[in-house]
Amino acid sequence: LFVQKVKSEGIAHLSYFIGQGSEAAVIDPRRDIDIYLELARKNEMNIGQVFETHRNEDYAIGSQELAAATGAKIFHGGQLMFRYGLEAKDGHEFHVGDLRIKALHTPGHTPESFSYVLYEPSAGNHPVMVFCGDALLVGEVGRTDLYGMESRERLAIDLYDSITKKVLPLGAGTIICPAHGGGSVCATEIVEREESTLGIEMATNHMLLLSRPDFIEAKRRENLELSPIFRRMEQINLEGARVLGRLPIPPALTPKEVKHGIVKGGFLLDIRSPYSFAGAFIPGAINLHLSFVPVYAGYVVPPDRSVLLVAESSGQVETFVRYMVRQGYDSFAGYLRAGMDQWSKNGHELASMDMVTAKDLNVRMKKGEEMFLMDVRDRKESAQGMIEGAKLIHLGEVQARMAEIPKNKTIVTFCGSGFRGSCAASMLMRNGYPKVQNLHGGFNAWKATGSPIVR
Amino acid sequence: LFVQKVKSEGIAHLSYFIGQGSEAAVIDPRRDIDIYLELARKNEMNIGQVFETHRNEDYAIGSQELAAATGAKIFHGGQLMFRYGLEAKDGHEFHVGDLRIKALHTPGHTPESFSYVLYEPSAGNHPVMVFCGDALLVGEVGRTDLYGMESRERLAIDLYDSITKKVLPLGAGTIICPAHGGGSVCATEIVEREESTLGIEMATNHMLLLSRPDFIEAKRRENLELSPIFRRMEQINLEGARVLGRLPIPPALTPKEVKHGIVKGGFLLDIRSPYSFAGAFIPGAINLHLSFVPVYAGYVVPPDRSVLLVAESSGQVETFVRYMVRQGYDSFAGYLRAGMDQWSKNGHELASMDMVTAKDLNVRMKKGEEMFLMDVRDRKESAQGMIEGAKLIHLGEVQARMAEIPKNKTIVTFCGSGFRGSCAASMLMRNGYPKVQNLHGGFNAWKATGSPIVR
Amino acid sequence: LFVQKVKSEGIAHLSYFIGQGSEAAVIDPRRDIDIYLELARKNEMNIGQVFETHRNEDYAIGSQELAAATGAKIFHGGQLMFRYGLEAKDGHEFHVGDLRIKALHTPGHTPESFSYVLYEPSAGNHPVMVFCGDALLVGEVGRTDLYGMESRERLAIDLYDSITKKVLPLGAGTIICPAHGGGSVCATEIVEREESTLGIEMATNHMLLLSRPDFIEAKRRENLELSPIFRRMEQINLEGARVLGRLPIPPALTPKEVKHGIVKGGFLLDIRSPYSFAGAFIPGAINLHLSFVPVYAGYVVPPDRSVLLVAESSGQVETFVRYMVRQGYDSFAGYLRAGMDQWSKNGHELASMDMVTAKDLNVRMKKGEEMFLMDVRDRKESAQGMIEGAKLIHLGEVQARMAEIPKNKTIVTFCGSGFRGSCAASMLMRNGYPKVQNLHGGFNAWKATGSPIVR
Amino acid sequence: LFVQKVKSEGIAHLSYFIGQGSEAAVIDPRRDIDIYLELARKNEMNIGQVFETHRNEDYAIGSQELAAATGAKIFHGGQLMFRYGLEAKDGHEFHVGDLRIKALHTPGHTPESFSYVLYEPSAGNHPVMVFCGDALLVGEVGRTDLYGMESRERLAIDLYDSITKKVLPLGAGTIICPAHGGGSVCATEIVEREESTLGIEMATNHMLLLSRPDFIEAKRRENLELSPIFRRMEQINLEGARVLGRLPIPPALTPKEVKHGIVKGGFLLDIRSPYSFAGAFIPGAINLHLSFVPVYAGYVVPPDRSVLLVAESSGQVETFVRYMVRQGYDSFAGYLRAGMDQWSKNGHELASMDMVTAKDLNVRMKKGEEMFLMDVRDRKESAQGMIEGAKLIHLGEVQARMAEIPKNKTIVTFCGSGFRGSCAASMLMRNGYPKVQNLHGGFNAWKATGSPIVR
Repeated sequence: LFVQKVKSEGIAHLSYFIGQGSEAAVIDPRRDIDIYLELARKNEMNIGQVFETHRNEDYAIGSQELAAATGAKIFHGGQLMFRYGLEAKDGHEFHVGDLRIKALHTPGHTPESFSYVLYEPSAGNHPVMVFCGDALLVGEVGRTDLYGMESRERLAIDLYDSITKKVLPLGAGTIICPAHGGGSVCATEIVEREESTLGIEMATNHMLLLSRPDFIEAKRRENLELSPIFRRMEQINLEGARVLGRLPIPPALTPKEVKHGIVKGGFLLDIRSPYSFAGAFIPGAINLHLSFVPVYAGYVVPPDRSVLLVAESSGQVETFVRYMVRQGYDSFAGYLRAGMDQWSKNGHELASMDMVTAKDLNVRMKKGEEMFLMDVRDRKESAQGMIEGAKLIHLGEVQARMAEIPKNKTIVTFCGSGFRGSCAASMLMRNGYPKVQNLHGGFNAWKATGSPIVR
Repeated sequence: LFVQKVKSEGIAHLSYFIGQGSEAAVIDPRRDIDIYLELARKNEMNIGQVFETHRNEDYAIGSQELAAATGAKIFHGGQLMFRYGLEAKDGHEFHVGDLRIKALHTPGHTPESFSYVLYEPSAGNHPVMVFCGDALLVGEVGRTDLYGMESRERLAIDLYDSITKKVLPLGAGTIICPAHGGGSVCATEIVEREESTLGIEMATNHMLLLSRPDFIEAKRRENLELSPIFRRMEQINLEGARVLGRLPIPPALTPKEVKHGIVKGGFLLDIRSPYSFAGAFIPGAINLHLSFVPVYAGYVVPPDRSVLLVAESSGQVETFVRYMVRQGYDSFAGYLRAGMDQWSKNGHELASMDMVTAKDLNVRMKKGEEMFLMDVRDRKESAQGMIEGAKLIHLGEVQARMAEIPKNKTIVTFCGSGFRGSCAASMLMRNGYPKVQNLHGGFNAWKATGSPIVR
Repeated sequence: LFVQKVKSEGIAHLSYFIGQGSEAAVIDPRRDIDIYLELARKNEMNIGQVFETHRNEDYAIGSQELAAATGAKIFHGGQLMFRYGLEAKDGHEFHVGDLRIKALHTPGHTPESFSYVLYEPSAGNHPVMVFCGDALLVGEVGRTDLYGMESRERLAIDLYDSITKKVLPLGAGTIICPAHGGGSVCATEIVEREESTLGIEMATNHMLLLSRPDFIEAKRRENLELSPIFRRMEQINLEGARVLGRLPIPPALTPKEVKHGIVKGGFLLDIRSPYSFAGAFIPGAINLHLSFVPVYAGYVVPPDRSVLLVAESSGQVETFVRYMVRQGYDSFAGYLRAGMDQWSKNGHELASMDMVTAKDLNVRMKKGEEMFLMDVRDRKESAQGMIEGAKLIHLGEVQARMAEIPKNKTIVTFCGSGFRGSCAASMLMRNGYPKVQNLHGGFNAWKATGSPIVR
Repeated sequence: LFVQKVKSEGIAHLSYFIGQGSEAAVIDPRRDIDIYLELARKNEMNIGQVFETHRNEDYAIGSQELAAATGAKIFHGGQLMFRYGLEAKDGHEFHVGDLRIKALHTPGHTPESFSYVLYEPSAGNHPVMVFCGDALLVGEVGRTDLYGMESRERLAIDLYDSITKKVLPLGAGTIICPAHGGGSVCATEIVEREESTLGIEMATNHMLLLSRPDFIEAKRRENLELSPIFRRMEQINLEGARVLGRLPIPPALTPKEVKHGIVKGGFLLDIRSPYSFAGAFIPGAINLHLSFVPVYAGYVVPPDRSVLLVAESSGQVETFVRYMVRQGYDSFAGYLRAGMDQWSKNGHELASMDMVTAKDLNVRMKKGEEMFLMDVRDRKESAQGMIEGAKLIHLGEVQARMAEIPKNKTIVTFCGSGFRGSCAASMLMRNGYPKVQNLHGGFNAWKATGSPIVR
């Protein structure tokens, strides 16, 4: 038995390579599939099957890419009209060498969610692992609101039943292998730890400690953000993402070429840190730090615009491309060669952005300085505490709600730690706001300095 | 919580890197410690503590090496007179960031065996993992015969009580992280699968299905090989292995220098496959394939002789050195540059060895051909079945029992798959036996061809 | 100026990556192009141009593959009817950043050979390097016999004039960057050293020390092997090799699948060393060591048969595939998973081959033992010395001249060092020759032992 | 012949690994020697000799480190009182396999400078390469002012004679392999291109186009900076740098530990880009971008202070350590784990720095804004053109000449491209200057925008 978890950071997506003898399968592959091919090669295995736990909404799944490269068969639930792959049926058993993989229909997170239970001969009939998709997560269960308000309750009921009647009966000793880890948007609050068992979950998962009615009620009250990317990913994942072959690494551009690209309608995206960005940036650029690209690119980058990239170093370019193809973005105009040094040595225009620290902001607020305090966090975060007087405008709404933001005041943006605040601030600057500041360290810093919090 | 298992192949030794925040600990480090330093570097962690589950007998532990490089403190049980490190006490709690690690004295495999239980805040008081050393293994329990016949029963009782009273009560949902995996000499038959929980073990571990008296009786009847390396490793591990710094990569030697090295008393070791060796070898060389070095070097290579190495390719040299330092061998005379090609192109002497297939051997035996059939497997293997008329001489005894082996007959050696048989055959050829053959594919091939088996 | 030589071992093919600023060009790319893409990425460059020095006959050029991945333009001489690319003209200048690359028509090795001269601003009008294809090589000049006997003299004249009138006038201080290095089949005897200048060549290249008539006469007398691969490569290189995308890594096969593949007509190729092969091989397999695949696959592997591979380790598989796609082989049936160990443990049939050492052979010959001594080296090698009584049958002719080889005698094959001899011996065994032996160490060993040589 | 150039970026130091057969030598090794050991390993070679071209002043040579790891002998000129190594004598010949290396005493850059000429059998008596240290560089010759004004003329004469009487007579076709490349402080203006021959130098090196008197006069007029590091490196290189063993990777520190480290006298060094630094930094930190550490650490970091490091990412830490040990800094207090994000999320104090663009500065100057314009470039750079009214205070003098810098004015710092300007600005801020700005893009941007230049 060879099992290897493959984590896609940012979206905290977990896929799994399972192999025995010369046969292998992948659960929920990502779109940049080289890592699975490499695992197959190293272990002298052939990937013959791909199992999808469900149609994902936070990334474009790589099943088609992997099938194109290996000839593998793809399986997923038949409750949605997939344009590719084969239908897994409840109770169906698959084989990978002498491993047995049993499909369980576990609807709830989505109607066609499946869990796959791994049996290995030396453990007889005791399941070793369950690949439970987004049904059961570490310390959490999947969200049930992705199919609209009307189906939310039904899905919550389905989820409760799937977990309690199909998953938990596998036994406390079964290791769980969910499709997402801490930080994912697929559930309220997944725990950071990725090692867990049904026994640990039964004892400590806050949702599993609830009664059936309380569970359903808790799901009904759940109030999570819906990323604009969800609908697009769902669409892509129904049809099967376009096969890429090689990663579409963008060309290196001179400052002049970047300028030309801007004129031609390219989307100027700066993935450096908020500190670098604040220090100097190309006027008009939107700042989204590389580490936030996996989750927030969908909010920020229009799918029909070609990206002109500014990075800290060329080493970030490939990582950026990986993050983007996982989000269904397939083509890029280019990246600024030798980065901001090249740009500034050539004497091109630069802008900078003021930062403000929590301590200073507190002092200024106490002094009664007039400003527009803009909280770009999501509802879940703001429910934990806010800064008095701040207006909640989620990062994804900044563009649409620009009219609510006064041009004649100092705007102070903030998020949890300063990254999304910088993104929002860059949007405002691009739109001509004259005085924009970002709170470095965000709400974390605010709390850490003991500044007053309201709820 | 960051946990990374580090496996040392061959001896199937499992060590673990555990980190949280900037702090890290290593359980049972191996002696070539670069992998732990690299994990620490990548995760921006400092290794501050080393936990030893027990004094190992199958490898030289790297605690001192790691402590020298990082300043970490070393903990182990106080029931043996270690010349280094600090004493872990039963119930003592350690901290790695906000992880809690509780030490449990779990004697049985050795008197000073400890298990370390990992608690992580998000799982509250439910243990997440237990690093149980060689007390409880996947599908097996540790051997109890290392302290001699007289203490065997007492240790078996200790082991039963350690497992049932201290480990199993941690709960079915606790993941187990033993010190060895399938193939290790530290227990009769560890399962190949490395993923397990106490729940899986309770349900499927053949030893845990026994009553207390049956468990003790089973341990009393256990009849395992004692490698000559055990005493040496125990000694080294009491004193703490010498700190190496860089890996002692041997120099590249010309054929002439190898010849000179032989004259000076070097031990000529050929780590190529039995096929390569059979095809052509330097007269006098002992064949031990690289993959068998971790476990069998101790049987074959005298600790006071400096090795002259013949490898398939220079890429094997570093791996060989790693395997050897893990066995407490620290210095090497050199390796033959450009391998056997260089040797043979220079017209130096070569020998070759006959091979025999299972099918042919069966035919020859049926025909009544006289030969001395020599089974170099261990007792455990031969108990599963033998070839009629074969004499059992464990690989480690070949040198000592040479007198029992007739010089005037064809000698056919065999083991399980052909590797140890080739080693034994090379010893005989070195000692002037005129007609030696090795059974390719070993007993496995014998069985696969449906040849007759006796028990 | 960034210049990186990329060497393809075996065929000793040298390609060059040249970059300046964001622009790059590649001279004579190989077909597995990932190395150029990686260089471009690391240096933040875009490959915009590909220069071919000539239509090669020893490998399939990767220009089309590279153009497909990067959009680069391809340039080569217009004297052949290429089905792709653009025509470079004598005297034409290209630019890579502020580098200047001047095309010189330097016919001789082939009629459309071009050299490319690199000028860099800091060296003004002094050429820094000349990429001279196979016109001028280190210590040698290109062969002129590839277009048949009738054009040989004309090409020799062209070559002399190209070198003396176009290349040498660039000045003694110009560094030469030829298309092939030591060991290539594109010239009689290229020197192993790859660092050279026109000054060094003028002083030490044996061909440049000749007068024009002597040069032409020497070329007329040149008598080199023509590999069957030449015509195929020429054809492929006129049309442009098929674009591959990912490397076609073959699947891992079980012994059973390999057997099935043999039945279905697969070509069983064993790329292990002659020692491993001699020790044990699958009956019917042809032995061609991995290091000889680049040059000899064309002689040995029929282009229309799909290869079933036996390797020393899975690490060799990718290297093998690279070597093969460079020779225009694009598809493979699979490789034996876990190699010969797996095969022999399953009790499948094995054969072995006798080896003989130079010393023993000499003794046997002196004793007058009857045998058929078969020298599979090429004419160039045998001209340096032969073993008395040996019959010269080039490795590429063994199959065709099988009738000349007596079945009732012991056959002893030999080459330079034992690799090709093993290949020839494996062909004979496959054809039912009962007693075949290979001289380990080959003619090198023969010489080294002071055995008698005839010329 | 295997030759591999190893470049140490920043100081543009070039060392060379030369090997043939099983023997290898290294010319001018750097102190982090793993790269040479790796080359030796890959090529199955043993490093037996180290050749120093001269006692360097810009880095601590790794000869002792390499000798400690390999047992190699070290050779250098006997004109200085080295405390380690053996004396190379003029005309002495060394052997590396069948390569011949001839030592030539070529004083000038230093009195004990040696060049090493490489002969390879296939090139007979024509030298292939000359490792000429800092005597002859690409497009330049070495500086002659390192032994004080009084010996400058004598050394210039020596240098002229060494080059013209010993090096150039090797012939136009000899490839030169100098000890430094473009950007080095060891000469006025070494060309960026690293590929050259004596032929190219004779034709294009501006110093070789001068007559003997003009050459000497040019050297007499040379006016280069003397880094404070020079004396220290000379001292270390006479005695032999301390043997390190493993690289001294510093521990990861929490913000709290960094604060504690500052209190205990640690030197807070921020190696992020000027943009990141300007955006936000820890008050009191000195900014020296990683790429400037190799050359400027000696100006900025007191050798007796332990560094507390702030980096863009943990990936920079090892590179930083390599740069520092090459400068003789051996111990480090630690680095800020998770960087500025961690710091700011914890609400710790931050400062920021204003930047100014060339265009804005020009406008402000035209408007007559009062400011103190501070040019931190060196004499060579400022001789190419200055901004009117700027005061030249070399980066290395900022601390000492602080009194000349007015506290009551806006200070605008600038260098060539913005990196050293940011360093100087950080020093001023640390010293309490209230209004400090750095010119982004530096003098390059100033020129590119067509702003007025004075000479």
